[in-house]
Amino acid sequence: MPRQITAFSNPLVKSVRLLREKRHRREQGRFLAEGLRILTEALDAGCLPETIFYAVDSARHPLVVRLVAAVEQAGGEAIETSRDILHKLSGKDNPQTVLGVYAEFTLPLAALDRSTAPIWLVAQSLRDPGNLGTILRTGDAVGAGGLILIDDCVDPFSVEAVRASMGALFTQSIAAATWPEFVAWLRGGAGQLVGLSLDTDHDYQAPRYAAPTFLLVGNEAQGLPAEYAAECDLLVKMPMLGKADSLNAAVATAVMAYEVLNQRRRVPDPA
Amino acid sequence: MPRQITAFSNPLVKSVRLLREKRHRREQGRFLAEGLRILTEALDAGCLPETIFYAVDSARHPLVVRLVAAVEQAGGEAIETSRDILHKLSGKDNPQTVLGVYAEFTLPLAALDRSTAPIWLVAQSLRDPGNLGTILRTGDAVGAGGLILIDDCVDPFSVEAVRASMGALFTQSIAAATWPEFVAWLRGGAGQLVGLSLDTDHDYQAPRYAAPTFLLVGNEAQGLPAEYAAECDLLVKMPMLGKADSLNAAVATAVMAYEVLNQRRRVPDPA
Repeated sequence: MPRQITAFSNPLVKSVRLLREKRHRREQGRFLAEGLRILTEALDAGCLPETIFYAVDSARHPLVVRLVAAVEQAGGEAIETSRDILHKLSGKDNPQTVLGVYAEFTLPLAALDRSTAPIWLVAQSLRDPGNLGTILRTGDAVGAGGLILIDDCVDPFSVEAVRASMGALFTQSIAAATWPEFVAWLRGGAGQLVGLSLDTDHDYQAPRYAAPTFLLVGNEAQGLPAEYAAECDLLVKMPMLGKADSLNAAVATAVMAYEVLNQRRRVPDPA
Repeated sequence: MPRQITAFSNPLVKSVRLLREKRHRREQGRFLAEGLRILTEALDAGCLPETIFYAVDSARHPLVVRLVAAVEQAGGEAIETSRDILHKLSGKDNPQTVLGVYAEFTLPLAALDRSTAPIWLVAQSLRDPGNLGTILRTGDAVGAGGLILIDDCVDPFSVEAVRASMGALFTQSIAAATWPEFVAWLRGGAGQLVGLSLDTDHDYQAPRYAAPTFLLVGNEAQGLPAEYAAECDLLVKMPMLGKADSLNAAVATAVMAYEVLNQRRRVPDPA
Protein backbone atom coordinates (compact mmCIF):
# COMPACT_ATOMS: atom_id res chain seq x y z
CA MET A 1 0.00 0.00 0.00
CA PRO A 2 1.23 3.49 -0.82
CA ARG A 3 2.04 5.54 2.19
CA GLN A 4 1.07 9.17 2.46
CA ILE A 5 3.37 12.07 3.10
CA THR A 6 1.96 15.50 3.73
CA ALA A 7 4.68 17.17 5.80
CA PHE A 8 7.36 19.30 4.19
CA SER A 9 9.61 18.35 7.10
CA ASN A 10 9.51 14.66 6.23
CA PRO A 11 13.13 13.43 5.96
CA LEU A 12 12.47 11.63 2.66
CA VAL A 13 11.09 14.83 1.13
CA LYS A 14 14.17 16.69 2.27
CA SER A 15 16.53 14.06 0.89
CA VAL A 16 14.77 13.78 -2.48
CA ARG A 17 14.63 17.52 -2.88
CA LEU A 18 18.43 17.63 -2.65
CA LEU A 19 18.66 15.55 -5.83
CA ARG A 20 18.19 18.70 -7.85
CA GLU A 21 21.85 19.38 -7.01
CA LYS A 22 24.61 17.44 -8.73
CA ARG A 23 26.64 16.98 -5.53
CA HIS A 24 23.76 15.23 -3.83
CA ARG A 25 22.99 13.10 -6.88
CA ARG A 26 26.54 11.81 -6.76
CA GLU A 27 26.44 11.23 -2.99
CA GLN A 28 23.14 9.37 -3.15
CA GLY A 29 23.72 7.72 -6.54
CA ARG A 30 20.18 8.72 -7.47
CA PHE A 31 18.40 11.19 -9.74
CA LEU A 32 14.93 12.58 -10.39
CA ALA A 33 12.64 12.14 -13.37
CA GLU A 34 9.30 13.90 -13.63
CA GLY A 35 6.11 13.47 -15.57
CA LEU A 36 3.84 10.65 -16.61
CA ARG A 37 5.23 10.50 -20.11
CA ILE A 38 8.85 10.12 -19.04
CA LEU A 39 8.15 7.66 -16.20
CA THR A 40 6.02 5.57 -18.53
CA GLU A 41 8.77 5.55 -21.18
CA ALA A 42 11.16 4.44 -18.45
CA LEU A 43 8.83 1.64 -17.39
CA ASP A 44 8.48 0.49 -20.99
CA ALA A 45 12.26 0.44 -21.19
CA GLY A 46 12.38 -1.75 -18.08
CA CYS A 47 13.47 0.98 -15.65
CA LEU A 48 11.60 1.40 -12.39
CA PRO A 49 12.12 4.11 -9.80
CA GLU A 50 13.10 3.13 -6.28
CA THR A 51 10.48 5.57 -5.07
CA ILE A 52 7.56 7.14 -6.88
CA PHE A 53 5.69 10.20 -5.63
CA TYR A 54 2.29 10.93 -7.11
CA ALA A 55 -0.35 13.60 -6.55
CA VAL A 56 -3.33 12.39 -4.55
CA ASP A 57 -5.68 13.92 -7.13
CA SER A 58 -4.16 11.74 -9.87
CA ALA A 59 -4.26 8.43 -7.98
CA ARG A 60 -6.84 6.97 -10.36
CA HIS A 61 -5.13 7.92 -13.61
CA PRO A 62 -4.54 4.61 -15.43
CA LEU A 63 -0.86 5.36 -16.09
CA VAL A 64 -0.34 6.29 -12.43
CA VAL A 65 -2.07 3.09 -11.32
CA ARG A 66 0.16 1.08 -13.65
CA LEU A 67 3.34 2.79 -12.45
CA VAL A 68 2.48 2.44 -8.77
CA ALA A 69 1.66 -1.25 -9.17
CA ALA A 70 4.92 -1.90 -11.01
CA VAL A 71 6.99 -0.05 -8.43
CA GLU A 72 5.39 -1.87 -5.50
CA GLN A 73 5.68 -5.24 -7.20
CA ALA A 74 9.39 -4.64 -7.66
CA GLY A 75 9.81 -3.82 -3.99
CA GLY A 76 9.98 -0.06 -4.41
CA GLU A 77 7.99 2.49 -2.51
CA ALA A 78 4.97 4.48 -3.72
CA ILE A 79 4.11 7.71 -1.92
CA GLU A 80 0.88 9.59 -2.29
CA THR A 81 1.35 13.26 -1.65
CA SER A 82 0.12 16.77 -2.38
CA ARG A 83 0.79 19.09 -5.30
CA ASP A 84 2.54 21.37 -2.82
CA ILE A 85 5.04 18.67 -1.91
CA LEU A 86 5.55 17.83 -5.58
CA HIS A 87 6.18 21.51 -6.21
CA LYS A 88 8.75 21.50 -3.43
CA LEU A 89 10.44 18.37 -4.80
CA SER A 90 10.55 19.49 -8.41
CA GLY A 91 11.13 23.18 -7.90
CA LYS A 92 8.59 23.88 -10.63
CA ASP A 93 5.63 26.20 -10.28
CA ASN A 94 3.46 23.78 -12.16
CA PRO A 95 4.75 20.38 -11.00
CA GLN A 96 4.11 17.16 -12.85
CA THR A 97 1.71 14.54 -11.52
CA VAL A 98 4.43 12.01 -10.78
CA LEU A 99 8.07 12.09 -9.82
CA GLY A 100 10.41 9.12 -9.65
CA VAL A 101 13.69 8.59 -7.83
CA TYR A 102 15.99 6.36 -9.89
CA ALA A 103 19.41 4.84 -9.37
CA GLU A 104 22.08 6.35 -11.60
CA PHE A 105 23.46 4.04 -14.25
CA THR A 106 26.54 5.47 -15.96
CA LEU A 107 28.62 2.66 -17.40
CA PRO A 108 32.34 2.20 -17.88
CA LEU A 109 33.38 1.93 -21.54
CA ALA A 110 34.29 -1.72 -21.03
CA ALA A 111 30.61 -2.45 -20.37
CA LEU A 112 29.53 -1.20 -23.83
CA ASP A 113 29.13 -3.76 -26.59
CA ARG A 114 29.73 -1.74 -29.74
CA SER A 115 28.47 -4.54 -31.96
CA THR A 116 24.92 -4.06 -30.71
CA ALA A 117 24.32 -0.84 -32.66
CA PRO A 118 25.52 0.73 -35.93
CA ILE A 119 25.71 4.27 -34.49
CA TRP A 120 27.13 5.60 -31.23
CA LEU A 121 27.05 9.24 -30.19
CA VAL A 122 30.02 10.82 -28.46
CA ALA A 123 29.93 14.27 -26.85
CA GLN A 124 32.93 16.18 -25.60
CA SER A 125 32.61 18.84 -22.88
CA LEU A 126 29.00 19.51 -23.74
CA ARG A 127 27.73 22.23 -21.40
CA ASP A 128 24.02 22.57 -22.00
CA PRO A 129 21.72 20.04 -20.30
CA GLY A 130 19.01 20.65 -22.90
CA ASN A 131 21.45 19.77 -25.68
CA LEU A 132 22.56 16.64 -23.86
CA GLY A 133 19.00 15.45 -23.28
CA THR A 134 18.04 16.27 -26.87
CA ILE A 135 21.02 14.26 -28.15
CA LEU A 136 19.85 11.27 -26.09
CA ARG A 137 16.38 11.64 -27.59
CA THR A 138 17.86 11.72 -31.10
CA GLY A 139 20.06 8.72 -30.27
CA ASP A 140 16.99 6.71 -29.38
CA ALA A 141 15.32 7.71 -32.66
CA VAL A 142 18.25 6.79 -34.93
CA GLY A 143 18.87 3.48 -33.20
CA ALA A 144 22.11 4.53 -31.51
CA GLY A 145 23.55 2.23 -28.89
CA GLY A 146 24.27 4.99 -26.44
CA LEU A 147 26.01 8.21 -25.60
CA ILE A 148 29.63 8.41 -24.53
CA LEU A 149 30.50 11.53 -22.53
CA ILE A 150 34.09 12.72 -22.86
CA ASP A 151 35.84 15.05 -20.43
CA ASP A 152 33.76 17.49 -18.45
CA CYS A 153 30.21 17.20 -19.80
CA VAL A 154 27.10 18.49 -18.07
CA ASP A 155 25.44 15.90 -15.86
CA PRO A 156 23.08 13.65 -17.89
CA PHE A 157 21.07 13.09 -14.71
CA SER A 158 20.28 16.77 -14.14
CA VAL A 159 16.58 17.55 -14.11
CA GLU A 160 16.88 19.58 -17.32
CA ALA A 161 18.74 16.86 -19.22
CA VAL A 162 16.31 14.17 -18.10
CA ARG A 163 13.38 16.34 -19.18
CA ALA A 164 14.89 17.16 -22.58
CA SER A 165 15.59 13.46 -23.18
CA MET A 166 11.85 12.75 -22.90
CA GLY A 167 12.60 9.31 -21.53
CA ALA A 168 15.39 8.41 -23.96
CA LEU A 169 17.77 8.57 -21.01
CA PHE A 170 16.34 5.19 -20.07
CA THR A 171 16.77 3.57 -23.49
CA GLN A 172 20.32 4.69 -24.20
CA SER A 173 23.48 3.37 -22.55
CA ILE A 174 25.46 6.22 -21.04
CA ALA A 175 29.20 5.94 -20.48
CA ALA A 176 31.72 8.50 -19.28
CA ALA A 177 35.44 8.54 -20.00
CA THR A 178 38.46 10.73 -20.49
CA TRP A 179 39.70 11.23 -24.03
CA PRO A 180 42.71 8.87 -23.66
CA GLU A 181 40.45 6.19 -22.18
CA PHE A 182 38.00 6.60 -25.03
CA VAL A 183 40.65 6.45 -27.76
CA ALA A 184 42.24 3.35 -26.22
CA TRP A 185 38.86 1.62 -26.03
CA LEU A 186 37.79 2.74 -29.52
CA ARG A 187 40.96 1.52 -31.20
CA GLY A 188 40.65 -1.83 -29.48
CA GLY A 189 37.82 -2.80 -31.82
CA ALA A 190 35.97 -1.94 -35.01
CA GLY A 191 34.61 1.53 -35.54
CA GLN A 192 34.92 4.73 -37.53
CA LEU A 193 35.37 7.95 -35.58
CA VAL A 194 33.63 10.83 -37.38
CA GLY A 195 34.06 14.31 -35.94
CA LEU A 196 31.76 17.26 -36.61
CA SER A 197 34.02 20.18 -37.32
CA LEU A 198 33.92 23.65 -38.81
CA ASP A 199 37.59 23.37 -39.78
CA THR A 200 37.14 21.06 -42.74
CA ASP A 201 35.84 21.19 -46.28
CA HIS A 202 34.50 17.62 -46.25
CA ASP A 203 30.80 17.65 -46.91
CA TYR A 204 28.90 15.37 -44.54
CA GLN A 205 27.06 13.69 -47.42
CA ALA A 206 30.17 12.76 -49.39
CA PRO A 207 31.54 9.79 -47.40
CA ARG A 208 29.97 6.35 -47.05
CA TYR A 209 30.06 5.75 -43.33
CA ALA A 210 31.27 2.46 -41.88
CA ALA A 211 29.52 0.75 -38.98
CA PRO A 212 29.80 1.11 -36.12
CA THR A 213 30.02 4.86 -36.66
CA PHE A 214 31.06 6.94 -33.66
CA LEU A 215 29.78 10.50 -34.15
CA LEU A 216 31.83 12.97 -32.13
CA VAL A 217 30.49 16.44 -31.32
CA GLY A 218 32.46 18.99 -29.34
CA ASN A 219 31.74 21.73 -26.87
CA GLU A 220 29.05 24.25 -27.92
CA ALA A 221 31.36 27.27 -27.92
CA GLN A 222 34.77 25.77 -28.67
CA GLY A 223 34.09 22.80 -30.92
CA LEU A 224 36.58 19.93 -30.83
CA PRO A 225 40.14 20.49 -29.58
CA ALA A 226 42.66 20.17 -32.44
CA GLU A 227 44.26 17.01 -31.06
CA TYR A 228 40.84 15.35 -30.80
CA ALA A 229 40.02 16.32 -34.37
CA ALA A 230 43.38 14.88 -35.48
CA GLU A 231 42.41 11.49 -34.03
CA CYS A 232 39.20 11.31 -36.09
CA ASP A 233 39.06 9.04 -39.12
CA LEU A 234 36.94 11.65 -40.85
CA LEU A 235 36.03 15.26 -40.17
CA VAL A 236 32.86 16.49 -41.82
CA LYS A 237 30.56 19.47 -41.78
CA MET A 238 27.12 20.43 -42.99
CA PRO A 239 26.66 23.12 -45.61
CA MET A 240 25.80 26.46 -44.03
CA LEU A 241 24.44 29.01 -46.45
CA GLY A 242 23.71 31.87 -44.07
CA LYS A 243 25.59 34.39 -42.01
CA ALA A 244 25.92 32.24 -38.91
CA ASP A 245 28.97 29.98 -38.75
CA SER A 246 27.63 27.04 -36.82
CA LEU A 247 24.57 25.00 -35.88
CA ASN A 248 23.27 24.19 -32.43
CA ALA A 249 25.21 21.15 -31.17
CA ALA A 250 22.14 18.94 -30.77
CA VAL A 251 20.86 19.95 -34.22
CA ALA A 252 24.22 19.22 -35.88
CA THR A 253 24.37 15.83 -34.17
CA ALA A 254 20.85 14.99 -35.36
CA VAL A 255 21.38 16.06 -38.97
CA MET A 256 24.56 13.99 -39.05
CA ALA A 257 23.02 10.96 -37.33
CA TYR A 258 20.12 10.93 -39.79
CA GLU A 259 22.58 11.02 -42.69
CA VAL A 260 24.27 7.89 -41.30
CA LEU A 261 20.90 6.22 -40.76
CA ASN A 262 19.65 7.22 -44.22
CA GLN A 263 22.67 5.67 -45.93
CA ARG A 264 21.73 2.31 -44.42
CA ARG A 265 18.01 2.12 -44.99
CA ARG A 266 15.70 1.73 -47.93
CA VAL A 267 13.37 4.68 -48.27
CA PRO A 268 9.80 3.49 -48.78
CA ASP A 269 8.24 4.42 -52.11
CA PRO A 270 5.76 7.29 -51.91
CA ALA A 271 2.31 5.96 -51.09
CA MET B 1 31.16 60.16 -26.76
CA PRO B 2 29.78 57.31 -24.68
CA ARG B 3 28.16 58.40 -21.49
CA GLN B 4 28.70 56.58 -18.24
CA ILE B 5 26.02 55.15 -16.03
CA THR B 6 26.92 53.79 -12.63
CA ALA B 7 23.67 54.18 -10.69
CA PHE B 8 21.18 51.35 -10.43
CA SER B 9 18.50 54.00 -10.00
CA ASN B 10 19.14 55.49 -13.44
CA PRO B 11 15.81 55.63 -15.31
CA LEU B 12 17.29 54.11 -18.47
CA VAL B 13 18.63 51.15 -16.48
CA LYS B 14 15.20 50.65 -14.98
CA SER B 15 13.45 50.84 -18.33
CA VAL B 16 15.88 48.50 -20.10
CA ARG B 17 15.72 45.98 -17.31
CA LEU B 18 11.96 45.70 -17.86
CA LEU B 19 12.60 44.36 -21.37
CA ARG B 20 13.14 40.94 -19.88
CA GLU B 21 9.34 40.82 -19.61
CA LYS B 22 7.21 40.32 -22.68
CA ARG B 23 4.64 42.91 -21.65
CA HIS B 24 7.26 45.62 -21.53
CA ARG B 25 8.85 44.51 -24.79
CA ARG B 26 5.49 44.99 -26.47
CA GLU B 27 4.90 48.36 -24.80
CA GLN B 28 8.32 49.69 -25.70
CA GLY B 29 8.62 47.89 -29.08
CA ARG B 30 12.16 46.90 -28.08
CA PHE B 31 14.10 43.83 -27.01
CA LEU B 32 17.47 42.85 -25.56
CA ALA B 33 20.32 40.94 -27.12
CA GLU B 34 23.46 40.06 -25.20
CA GLY B 35 26.99 39.10 -25.97
CA LEU B 36 29.72 40.17 -28.37
CA ARG B 37 29.09 37.31 -30.75
CA ILE B 38 25.38 38.00 -31.17
CA LEU B 39 25.74 41.78 -31.39
CA THR B 40 28.50 41.38 -33.96
CA GLU B 41 26.36 38.98 -36.02
CA ALA B 42 23.59 41.57 -35.86
CA LEU B 43 25.93 44.32 -37.03
CA ASP B 44 27.13 42.16 -39.90
CA ALA B 45 23.48 41.62 -40.84
CA GLY B 46 22.95 45.39 -40.84
CA CYS B 47 21.13 45.61 -37.51
CA LEU B 48 22.25 48.17 -34.97
CA PRO B 49 20.95 48.60 -31.45
CA GLU B 50 19.37 51.89 -30.46
CA THR B 51 21.43 51.70 -27.29
CA ILE B 52 24.48 49.62 -26.46
CA PHE B 53 25.74 49.01 -22.92
CA TYR B 54 29.27 47.75 -22.48
CA ALA B 55 31.44 46.92 -19.50
CA VAL B 56 34.06 49.55 -18.73
CA ASP B 57 36.71 46.83 -18.49
CA SER B 58 36.01 45.75 -22.07
CA ALA B 59 36.05 49.23 -23.65
CA ARG B 60 39.22 48.47 -25.64
CA HIS B 61 38.11 45.12 -27.05
CA PRO B 62 38.26 45.56 -30.85
CA LEU B 63 34.72 44.20 -31.35
CA VAL B 64 33.38 46.53 -28.66
CA VAL B 65 35.16 49.48 -30.24
CA ARG B 66 33.66 48.57 -33.62
CA LEU B 67 30.15 48.17 -32.22
CA VAL B 68 30.29 51.42 -30.25
CA ALA B 69 31.54 53.35 -33.27
CA ALA B 70 28.80 51.92 -35.49
CA VAL B 71 26.07 52.69 -32.96
CA GLU B 72 27.23 56.27 -32.46
CA GLN B 73 27.64 56.87 -36.16
CA ALA B 74 24.05 55.76 -36.69
CA GLY B 75 22.82 58.19 -34.05
CA GLY B 76 22.36 55.59 -31.31
CA GLU B 77 23.65 55.82 -27.80
CA ALA B 78 26.62 53.99 -26.28
CA ILE B 79 26.77 53.62 -22.53
CA GLU B 80 29.79 52.56 -20.56
CA THR B 81 28.82 50.86 -17.36
CA SER B 82 29.80 48.36 -14.70
CA ARG B 83 29.51 44.58 -14.60
CA ASP B 84 27.08 45.05 -11.74
CA ILE B 85 24.73 47.09 -13.89
CA LEU B 86 25.07 44.59 -16.75
CA HIS B 87 24.20 41.87 -14.28
CA LYS B 88 21.15 43.82 -13.24
CA LEU B 89 20.09 44.38 -16.86
CA SER B 90 20.61 40.81 -18.03
CA GLY B 91 19.57 38.97 -14.89
CA LYS B 92 22.51 36.63 -15.36
CA ASP B 93 25.11 35.88 -12.72
CA ASN B 94 27.86 36.03 -15.27
CA PRO B 95 26.70 38.81 -17.61
CA GLN B 96 28.02 39.29 -21.10
CA THR B 97 30.35 42.16 -21.96
CA VAL B 98 27.83 43.96 -24.11
CA LEU B 99 24.07 44.29 -24.25
CA GLY B 100 22.06 45.94 -27.00
CA VAL B 101 18.55 47.36 -27.06
CA TYR B 102 16.97 46.78 -30.48
CA ALA B 103 13.70 47.76 -32.10
CA GLU B 104 11.38 44.79 -32.68
CA PHE B 105 10.82 43.87 -36.30
CA THR B 106 8.02 41.35 -36.71
CA LEU B 107 6.56 41.65 -40.21
CA PRO B 108 3.09 41.15 -41.60
CA LEU B 109 2.84 38.27 -44.08
CA ALA B 110 2.22 40.73 -46.90
CA ALA B 111 5.74 42.07 -46.38
CA LEU B 112 7.36 38.67 -47.11
CA ASP B 113 8.57 38.01 -50.65
CA ARG B 114 8.42 34.23 -50.92
CA SER B 115 10.38 34.25 -54.17
CA THR B 116 13.53 35.33 -52.35
CA ALA B 117 14.19 31.93 -50.75
CA PRO B 118 13.51 28.26 -51.57
CA ILE B 119 12.67 27.31 -47.96
CA TRP B 120 10.51 28.98 -45.35
CA LEU B 121 10.00 27.68 -41.82
CA VAL B 122 6.58 27.83 -40.19
CA ALA B 123 6.00 27.09 -36.50
CA GLN B 124 2.61 26.64 -34.86
CA SER B 125 2.13 27.28 -31.13
CA LEU B 126 5.75 26.59 -30.36
CA ARG B 127 6.23 26.99 -26.60
CA ASP B 128 9.92 26.69 -25.91
CA PRO B 129 12.08 29.78 -26.53
CA GLY B 130 15.19 27.63 -26.96
CA ASN B 131 13.46 25.67 -29.72
CA LEU B 132 12.33 28.86 -31.44
CA GLY B 133 15.80 30.39 -31.35
CA THR B 134 17.38 27.13 -32.52
CA ILE B 135 14.94 26.98 -35.45
CA LEU B 136 15.96 30.52 -36.45
CA ARG B 137 19.61 29.45 -36.30
CA THR B 138 18.86 26.45 -38.51
CA GLY B 139 16.87 28.64 -40.88
CA ASP B 140 19.88 30.86 -41.38
CA ALA B 141 22.07 27.83 -42.10
CA VAL B 142 19.76 26.26 -44.70
CA GLY B 143 19.14 29.53 -46.51
CA ALA B 144 15.55 29.92 -45.36
CA GLY B 145 13.84 33.22 -46.02
CA GLY B 146 12.38 33.48 -42.57
CA LEU B 147 10.19 32.07 -39.87
CA ILE B 148 6.41 32.44 -39.82
CA LEU B 149 4.85 32.13 -36.37
CA ILE B 150 1.30 30.76 -36.31
CA ASP B 151 -1.13 31.15 -33.43
CA ASP B 152 0.25 31.53 -29.94
CA CYS B 153 4.01 30.98 -30.23
CA VAL B 154 6.54 31.93 -27.59
CA ASP B 155 7.99 35.40 -28.10
CA PRO B 156 10.91 35.33 -30.57
CA PHE B 157 12.30 38.42 -28.83
CA SER B 158 12.58 36.80 -25.41
CA VAL B 159 16.10 36.76 -24.00
CA GLU B 160 16.24 32.94 -24.26
CA ALA B 161 15.10 32.83 -27.89
CA VAL B 162 17.51 35.57 -28.92
CA ARG B 163 20.36 33.73 -27.20
CA ALA B 164 19.49 30.37 -28.77
CA SER B 165 19.30 31.99 -32.21
CA MET B 166 22.97 33.04 -31.84
CA GLY B 167 22.30 36.08 -33.98
CA ALA B 168 20.19 34.37 -36.63
CA LEU B 169 17.26 36.39 -35.32
CA PHE B 170 18.78 39.29 -37.22
CA THR B 171 19.24 37.47 -40.53
CA GLN B 172 15.80 35.85 -40.75
CA SER B 173 12.53 37.63 -41.51
CA ILE B 174 10.01 36.96 -38.77
CA ALA B 175 6.28 37.17 -39.42
CA ALA B 176 3.32 36.38 -37.21
CA ALA B 177 -0.16 35.39 -38.33
CA THR B 178 -3.23 33.40 -37.45
CA TRP B 179 -3.79 30.13 -39.30
CA PRO B 180 -6.53 31.51 -41.59
CA GLU B 181 -4.37 34.51 -42.45
CA PHE B 182 -1.46 32.24 -43.23
CA VAL B 183 -3.47 29.87 -45.42
CA ALA B 184 -5.01 32.76 -47.36
CA TRP B 185 -1.57 34.28 -47.96
CA LEU B 186 0.06 30.94 -48.81
CA ARG B 187 -2.56 29.99 -51.39
CA GLY B 188 -2.26 33.39 -53.01
CA GLY B 189 1.05 32.36 -54.54
CA ALA B 190 3.43 29.50 -55.29
CA GLY B 191 4.49 27.16 -52.54
CA GLN B 192 4.25 23.64 -51.17
CA LEU B 193 3.10 23.26 -47.57
CA VAL B 194 4.85 20.30 -45.93
CA GLY B 195 3.80 19.35 -42.42
CA LEU B 196 5.86 17.33 -39.96
CA SER B 197 3.52 14.79 -38.48
CA LEU B 198 3.56 11.57 -36.52
CA ASP B 199 0.20 10.58 -38.03
CA THR B 200 1.48 9.62 -41.44
CA ASP B 201 3.44 6.83 -43.10
CA HIS B 202 5.09 9.10 -45.65
CA ASP B 203 8.83 8.95 -45.27
CA TYR B 204 10.45 12.39 -45.39
CA GLN B 205 12.98 11.25 -47.99
CA ALA B 206 10.44 9.89 -50.46
CA PRO B 207 9.02 13.10 -52.00
CA ARG B 208 10.83 15.56 -54.21
CA TYR B 209 10.05 18.90 -52.63
CA ALA B 210 8.92 21.87 -54.70
CA ALA B 211 10.22 25.38 -54.08
CA PRO B 212 9.33 27.44 -52.23
CA THR B 213 8.84 24.77 -49.58
CA PHE B 214 7.02 25.84 -46.45
CA LEU B 215 7.99 23.49 -43.60
CA LEU B 216 5.33 23.44 -40.90
CA VAL B 217 6.13 22.18 -37.38
CA GLY B 218 3.54 22.03 -34.62
CA ASN B 219 3.49 22.48 -30.88
CA GLU B 220 6.06 20.44 -28.93
CA ALA B 221 3.51 18.42 -26.98
CA GLN B 222 0.48 18.35 -29.29
CA GLY B 223 1.88 18.37 -32.80
CA LEU B 224 -0.27 19.87 -35.55
CA PRO B 225 -4.04 20.18 -35.11
CA ALA B 226 -5.89 17.82 -37.47
CA GLU B 227 -7.40 20.62 -39.54
CA TYR B 228 -3.97 22.17 -40.04
CA ALA B 229 -2.54 18.83 -41.12
CA ALA B 230 -5.42 18.44 -43.56
CA GLU B 231 -4.44 21.69 -45.27
CA CYS B 232 -0.89 20.48 -45.93
CA ASP B 233 0.10 19.41 -49.44
CA LEU B 234 2.25 16.70 -47.88
CA LEU B 235 2.64 15.20 -44.43
CA VAL B 236 5.93 13.50 -43.74
CA LYS B 237 7.86 12.01 -40.88
CA MET B 238 11.36 10.83 -40.10
CA PRO B 239 12.03 7.19 -39.33
CA MET B 240 12.21 6.59 -35.59
CA LEU B 241 13.76 3.29 -34.63
CA GLY B 242 13.71 3.57 -30.86
CA LYS B 243 11.21 3.55 -28.05
CA ALA B 244 10.48 7.28 -28.10
CA ASP B 245 7.72 8.41 -30.42
CA SER B 246 8.93 11.84 -31.44
CA LEU B 247 11.92 14.09 -31.91
CA ASN B 248 12.59 17.45 -30.36
CA ALA B 249 10.76 20.07 -32.48
CA ALA B 250 13.89 22.01 -33.40
CA VAL B 251 15.71 18.78 -34.27
CA ALA B 252 12.86 17.53 -36.48
CA THR B 253 12.73 20.89 -38.26
CA ALA B 254 16.47 20.80 -38.90
CA VAL B 255 16.57 17.21 -40.18
CA MET B 256 13.70 18.04 -42.53
CA ALA B 257 15.18 21.37 -43.66
CA TYR B 258 18.49 19.71 -44.50
CA GLU B 259 16.66 17.08 -46.55
CA VAL B 260 15.06 19.86 -48.62
CA LEU B 261 18.39 21.63 -48.98
CA ASN B 262 20.21 18.38 -49.87
CA GLN B 263 17.76 17.62 -52.67
CA ARG B 264 18.73 20.90 -54.33
CA ARG B 265 22.49 20.93 -54.07
CA ARG B 266 25.36 19.04 -55.56
CA VAL B 267 27.40 17.28 -52.93
CA PRO B 268 31.13 17.93 -53.45
CA ASP B 269 33.21 14.88 -54.23
CA PRO B 270 35.30 13.64 -51.32
CA ALA B 271 38.62 15.49 -51.28
